[in-house]
Amino acid sequence: MFVILVYDIGEKRVAKVLKTCRKYLYWVQNSVFEGEISEANLTKLKIEVGRIIDYEQDSIIIYSFRTTKYSNVEIMGIKKGGEDNFL
Amino acid sequence: MFVILVYDIGEKRVAKVLKTCRKYLYWVQNSVFEGEISEANLTKLKIEVGRIIDYEQDSIIIYSFRTTKYSNVEIMGIKKGGEDNFL
Repeated sequence: MFVILVYDIGEKRVAKVLKTCRKYLYWVQNSVFEGEISEANLTKLKIEVGRIIDYEQDSIIIYSFRTTKYSNVEIMGIKKGGEDNFL
Repeated sequence: MFVILVYDIGEKRVAKVLKTCRKYLYWVQNSVFEGEISEANLTKLKIEVGRIIDYEQDSIIIYSFRTTKYSNVEIMGIKKGGEDNFL
């Protein structure tokens, strides 16, 4: 499935969350990852991230889509993501 | 259609972008808006935002979906969005 993951994480934990997300998804913008991922790997990602975040301060939203057939992506301005400028 | 809009905007312009996005969508997390929007209003939003952003520094990604039938949303941690704590 296709996943868009957006995060808002406290400074102390953000590097660890980024490292974990990066194992499964592509970084596309400050606080946004996306990518194709299996159900099994999405579960793994959620468990790993769940161990890092502070549930009373941090926030992660995961949008998942069984198909991208009905979707479209448009970028305005610069494309920030990619391996090169990844934190 | 359903839209997820993520932004990474320079400090000087961010308040104006937020104000514009808020006219059409709901704020759900730091740098994320979502909502149902007509094609006509999405075009308006893009034009209005396009007048504010610096195309060499800022970045906006707009994911649009003709249906949310094949999608799912999951929130981990706190729910930050909503009118109350909007900037």
